[in-house]
Amino acid sequence: MAFEKVKRSENYSEWYNNLVKNADLAEHADVKGCMVIKPYGYAIWEKIQAQLDKMFKDTGHVNAYFPLLIPKSFFEKEEKNAEGFAKECAVVTHYRLKVDDNRKIIVDPEAKLEEELIIRPTSEAIIWNTYKGWIQSYRDLPLLINQWANVMRWEMRTRLFLRTSEFLWQEGHTAHSSSDEAIKETKQMLDVYAEFAENFMGVPVIKGVKTENERFAGAVETYCIEGLMQDGKALQMGTSHFLGQNFAKAFDVKFQSKEGKLEHVWATSWGVSTRLIGALIMAHSDDEGLVLPPNLAPIQVVIVPIYRSDEELVKVSSKAIEIKKQLEALGLSVKFDNRDTQKPGFKFAEWELKGVPLRIGIGPRDIENGTVELARRDTKEKHVIQIEGIDLKVKSTLEEIQKSIFERARSFRDNSIHIVNSWEEFKDVLENKSGFISAHWDGTGETEEKIKELTKATIRCIPLNNPQEEGVCVYSGKPSKQRVLFAKAY
Amino acid sequence: MAFEKVKRSENYSEWYNNLVKNADLAEHADVKGCMVIKPYGYAIWEKIQAQLDKMFKDTGHVNAYFPLLIPKSFFEKEEKNAEGFAKECAVVTHYRLKVDDNRKIIVDPEAKLEEELIIRPTSEAIIWNTYKGWIQSYRDLPLLINQWANVMRWEMRTRLFLRTSEFLWQEGHTAHSSSDEAIKETKQMLDVYAEFAENFMGVPVIKGVKTENERFAGAVETYCIEGLMQDGKALQMGTSHFLGQNFAKAFDVKFQSKEGKLEHVWATSWGVSTRLIGALIMAHSDDEGLVLPPNLAPIQVVIVPIYRSDEELVKVSSKAIEIKKQLEALGLSVKFDNRDTQKPGFKFAEWELKGVPLRIGIGPRDIENGTVELARRDTKEKHVIQIEGIDLKVKSTLEEIQKSIFERARSFRDNSIHIVNSWEEFKDVLENKSGFISAHWDGTGETEEKIKELTKATIRCIPLNNPQEEGVCVYSGKPSKQRVLFAKAY
Repeated sequence: MAFEKVKRSENYSEWYNNLVKNADLAEHADVKGCMVIKPYGYAIWEKIQAQLDKMFKDTGHVNAYFPLLIPKSFFEKEEKNAEGFAKECAVVTHYRLKVDDNRKIIVDPEAKLEEELIIRPTSEAIIWNTYKGWIQSYRDLPLLINQWANVMRWEMRTRLFLRTSEFLWQEGHTAHSSSDEAIKETKQMLDVYAEFAENFMGVPVIKGVKTENERFAGAVETYCIEGLMQDGKALQMGTSHFLGQNFAKAFDVKFQSKEGKLEHVWATSWGVSTRLIGALIMAHSDDEGLVLPPNLAPIQVVIVPIYRSDEELVKVSSKAIEIKKQLEALGLSVKFDNRDTQKPGFKFAEWELKGVPLRIGIGPRDIENGTVELARRDTKEKHVIQIEGIDLKVKSTLEEIQKSIFERARSFRDNSIHIVNSWEEFKDVLENKSGFISAHWDGTGETEEKIKELTKATIRCIPLNNPQEEGVCVYSGKPSKQRVLFAKAY
Repeated sequence: MAFEKVKRSENYSEWYNNLVKNADLAEHADVKGCMVIKPYGYAIWEKIQAQLDKMFKDTGHVNAYFPLLIPKSFFEKEEKNAEGFAKECAVVTHYRLKVDDNRKIIVDPEAKLEEELIIRPTSEAIIWNTYKGWIQSYRDLPLLINQWANVMRWEMRTRLFLRTSEFLWQEGHTAHSSSDEAIKETKQMLDVYAEFAENFMGVPVIKGVKTENERFAGAVETYCIEGLMQDGKALQMGTSHFLGQNFAKAFDVKFQSKEGKLEHVWATSWGVSTRLIGALIMAHSDDEGLVLPPNLAPIQVVIVPIYRSDEELVKVSSKAIEIKKQLEALGLSVKFDNRDTQKPGFKFAEWELKGVPLRIGIGPRDIENGTVELARRDTKEKHVIQIEGIDLKVKSTLEEIQKSIFERARSFRDNSIHIVNSWEEFKDVLENKSGFISAHWDGTGETEEKIKELTKATIRCIPLNNPQEEGVCVYSGKPSKQRVLFAKAY
């Protein structure tokens, strides 16, 4: 294990890249802009998927699957959506290769498509084209559908998990008979995302609304959850869009209401992606490696045997296996690392790097004493504990870790929200501190753009239930009714 | 519910199309060759996925994710593989659209890729290009990885689930330090597929080896499981390939052996797809609709209340909910269909159409008697049973249905294997009967081709553990050492 140690404090970005690589989470593919999600990284994604899928189903949604490729003419129909994504679309123009006279494989010029196909950057267009056939009457509503899929948005500058041309995500697409119901759904899914981020990822988030500039192309309103990473940059972790009747109008999707009137359908869409793995890494990890919240750790407990002879190994192993079974009976995922090719010290470092929340060390002396050593990944505390009752002790410690990781991230986040009242202060915070800036803004796109140009800080969101207070815009000096949250962001 | 009734016996193909449509499983997308998998169809896929995923993990595999797009130059490297798939590849040539002067969205001619990208028809090329970086020593082996993904093979004539341009599948890709170990893996995964087909899908399969003509492009040996549909046509349900060192050589993937020698790695790949849903439909369903095996049914039991007044509904509902809870406590998935917009008769027909294995009807008279009516979807038998102990009764009935569906399919399959010794008999079976033909074959690709040309029947497989017996080829009259299985196939 050649873990190139770069400290967070020295070079956060290099620290991140090294960690993703060394913890075996993902790597850049030899395909421009794309990533390979390695088994350990994918195992985290599977945990994320399982929990979110459960939450979606608990709120009445079902899964389905829509085509990867979208005819250009469908894509054009919702104009803003199309313009918003046009610059990052991969385009399929041919449907066949052939072997030429030199036995080289070439694109068959005779197999040119009449109409180009776009690899989905998001599926509103293809889905609303399909919903047209599914919705006639109010009885067909609401339609509450989610899709787990890959999408493609061409990127020139990529970063593993955070920004790649292809990524994995889920996209919910719902159809409703009233504006109110659709807005309620939009907010409900935002709450689901926030609950997931906080209770499973251990990442505190601010729920808010995007400004018009930052809104999803084609939405009436975009809601979001924003997290704060350890370098003080914000990360948009999930969005939930109220689409109004934009897509229903673009694709002519109408329903007969209870009163017998033909009306356009109301829509929402919402999504989170493999980007969440990036958030997980950046919110909690340290210079030794990953720190995973127990609720999403593929391995929650690792047991490392300590021994000098084969005889000792046999003794230690049998106890270790006994403990493993006990813990598994409580539904915990446990690895017994009995590789004989590596020393305990190496194993300790490896599981630290991979962020396993709890490590149990067990040697011959321990067995005599009826104890083991329990080591927490997050605080690096070690305690000798009794084997008697170990299952409940481990379970409660994991719960404690889950809470403690969240609390630490929350206090860091809370201490990183700076109330700022002047442009000087604004710049000072960006230069000398980091985190969110709560400042008055005049509500115009121009001021927002100007601030972005000058400082790279963007308006992350207008928090929900934002207190209304009279003030003046931190940049333009014009009147403002509320503070908004600015930050540099990923 | 406008179920256009077409009988299996009248027009099997139309019966199939209607069923897929009417049971809400899938539909043709407005994207040429692609399908939309509707929620009910997708729910079956989720059951299939969950079970297979468990079986893959139980045999030591982990999941990962590799890029959708494959640079043409990688794709070319394994020549046979490339030639085998070239004719059905979707090709990405541009990475950007733009809005032209007339505000039309067009492909930006300046955003032409230097190298075209292929949408994966299968991932050997991209995966072996990646494995090169992962494998140095025998300690890195075996590498046991699976991927759940969408793939694209351009099709002109499509059939929902059975043959579409885009489909969902899993593809296992493993790397080994010896030929023996790789062959063992290939066979193990074939066994996993066979076990899944028989014990979960309830479809009996024949395990065998493909002829050279039918082999996966790039494989040394292709193993397969072949099922028989109710129209007497065979369906290839899964394949497991021993790839030898072909891909390791094409991508220069070597490992240092225990003895310190540099050797090329040995490989396997194996996959099943959403085609299995087609198999499920065609193997069991009848003129009333789907017949789902309980082990894969999204809803295993539906409870339909029967009532004439609100008062009766309240009484019946409270009992129905009690029963639902009891059944759910056993891990069964139960739907209480309390829609007040539909009559019981309508509901009965709908759940029959959707293949729910067991229906419980419950009315006020039943409650007085402490009974319900239990109706089996597969045999259409109805029995009045006691509510007392209903949970165990339902559970055992579901197990019985699972077995009985399999047994019926097996006896149909067994009765559809025709031992044939002359060309006349061969043609007679194809014209007047259907199913598998067990016949001698001279082992040449020419004879195989000729028979296919003349009859459309192909060699489905050479069964594993095939008895060796001297004979003469049913077509050429040349000497043959064994019988093989012919059939018309999907």
